[in-house]
Amino acid sequence: MLLDEIRERVLKGDQRAIARAATLVENRHATQLLRELFPHTGKALVIGITGAPGAGKSTFASQLTRVLRAESKRVGVIAVDPTSPYSGGAILGDRIRMLEHYSDSGVFIRSMATRGWLGGLAPAAADMTVLFDAAGCDVIIVETVGVGQDEVEIAKLADVTLVVLTPNAGDDVQALKAGIMEIADVFVLNKSDLDGADKLERELKASFTLSHRPDGWTPLVVRTVAGEGKGIAEALNAVREYEATGLGKRKGGEVWAVRLREMLRERLLERYDPTVFERAARAVVNHETDPYTVIEELLGQQ
Amino acid sequence: MLLDEIRERVLKGDQRAIARAATLVENRHATQLLRELFPHTGKALVIGITGAPGAGKSTFASQLTRVLRAESKRVGVIAVDPTSPYSGGAILGDRIRMLEHYSDSGVFIRSMATRGWLGGLAPAAADMTVLFDAAGCDVIIVETVGVGQDEVEIAKLADVTLVVLTPNAGDDVQALKAGIMEIADVFVLNKSDLDGADKLERELKASFTLSHRPDGWTPLVVRTVAGEGKGIAEALNAVREYEATGLGKRKGGEVWAVRLREMLRERLLERYDPTVFERAARAVVNHETDPYTVIEELLGQQ
Repeated sequence: MLLDEIRERVLKGDQRAIARAATLVENRHATQLLRELFPHTGKALVIGITGAPGAGKSTFASQLTRVLRAESKRVGVIAVDPTSPYSGGAILGDRIRMLEHYSDSGVFIRSMATRGWLGGLAPAAADMTVLFDAAGCDVIIVETVGVGQDEVEIAKLADVTLVVLTPNAGDDVQALKAGIMEIADVFVLNKSDLDGADKLERELKASFTLSHRPDGWTPLVVRTVAGEGKGIAEALNAVREYEATGLGKRKGGEVWAVRLREMLRERLLERYDPTVFERAARAVVNHETDPYTVIEELLGQQ
Repeated sequence: MLLDEIRERVLKGDQRAIARAATLVENRHATQLLRELFPHTGKALVIGITGAPGAGKSTFASQLTRVLRAESKRVGVIAVDPTSPYSGGAILGDRIRMLEHYSDSGVFIRSMATRGWLGGLAPAAADMTVLFDAAGCDVIIVETVGVGQDEVEIAKLADVTLVVLTPNAGDDVQALKAGIMEIADVFVLNKSDLDGADKLERELKASFTLSHRPDGWTPLVVRTVAGEGKGIAEALNAVREYEATGLGKRKGGEVWAVRLREMLRERLLERYDPTVFERAARAVVNHETDPYTVIEELLGQQ
């Protein structure tokens, strides 16, 4: 397929063309395509889902997809997994929970690997939302495994961010506050049939009275048992309640400012031969030079 | 104090000069000073400590400092805390546990704030280790609260990385594997008098047999009860066992390559007027342009 053909077929929602385009996006060869697709975006609602490992995010995402499909919505799912810095492979075990949706032509699913501890949420994930949006998705679910910075970076991608918590999982509300608490527009209290759910809900709500978000939003708390499909519709209602305030779109401006900085940073570094850094690092380790001098020299080259 | 005086006094380990220099480092005004200090570095052992909130990292760090002081080692402690993106303040509650060391002239302590979900571990933290190293620290402990990417980024700063785990705290070994498991040179199994400690230790050790690190190192597991000072000397022995292999220093080269890239990225972006990104973001949100065209234009300016 030529680029023009891919673009036209993507805009019609053709699964095969979308898969081809997604591969281009993941390999960072899609700038021209994305530029042409961008004018066709802006319709999809991007829902970010994060939370600690084992909280049931994938099960929840799969159930949410089911509810949206019952409404005949077109759904994109982007599952972002951390890559092992040693093995190089992504941890895709959880993806099995999305299996029921793979044969549905109204659902696009893409698993992406982040670069482990050397990178954050792949910049490619942001571009993937552009692709799925242009392809006609009404809702795009971006799910991260919640290891490392991905957990909070999701707020840079999503119109609305859901944080999935479970009772008695070491989710100390006070301790989580700084990172996770502040990105959550909606808390999904999953496995809420377990002991400790009432306590966690109480602590969460108490924390809202202690610190206020400058946008005036008080996060909603929804209780679910994702494994049994309970509370999913209520979670979707909470998402829509937040969406209706227009706060998500306002946040969009701030988020794009951050994303543009990251995109530019990535491109500026591409101007340097990657081996430069390994050579310079050896010189620094051997104390033949110092890092501050190295940086001045590299800056002088551009 | 003039810069020359600060430098000379820092090299003599003068607490007041170090505090002044640390402020310069934190405000990113210390490039010249750091360049002059760098040749005097390379003697300190940098120990990174991370783990989930509530695992007892601060108590462990304080106890470790006590053991090192009993050996007359000079100790630097850098506590990295996430900043709230909303309040702008750092979460410094845990620092209270270091109080006993504040009056000790052989201990330098600095709390630093990261920039919340918009930044990772402050690049300033790396420069702070340079400062403390030049000031004559034998050991520098860098502790992060373990929210977001800081948790794994610590491996970029430290010669040896300790991950503090506790039984029954939702620390599912399989789930943690991708991010945390692979940066741990030593696991500190804290609160090991609690139920579940044996099980956690067993699971940890089983996981080592499933995946091997390319450097051939099998992480050590040390059981501690930091609150009672138990197991601290054993943890320090484990650190030294790892150090003796020379693997930490080899890792140093890779780590510097990553850090140089980050330093360069930061400096390259400084060439742009920061308001550019806000203006461009508004244009993108309003679909007056697309992000890919914006980036090409910005690249063309340099």
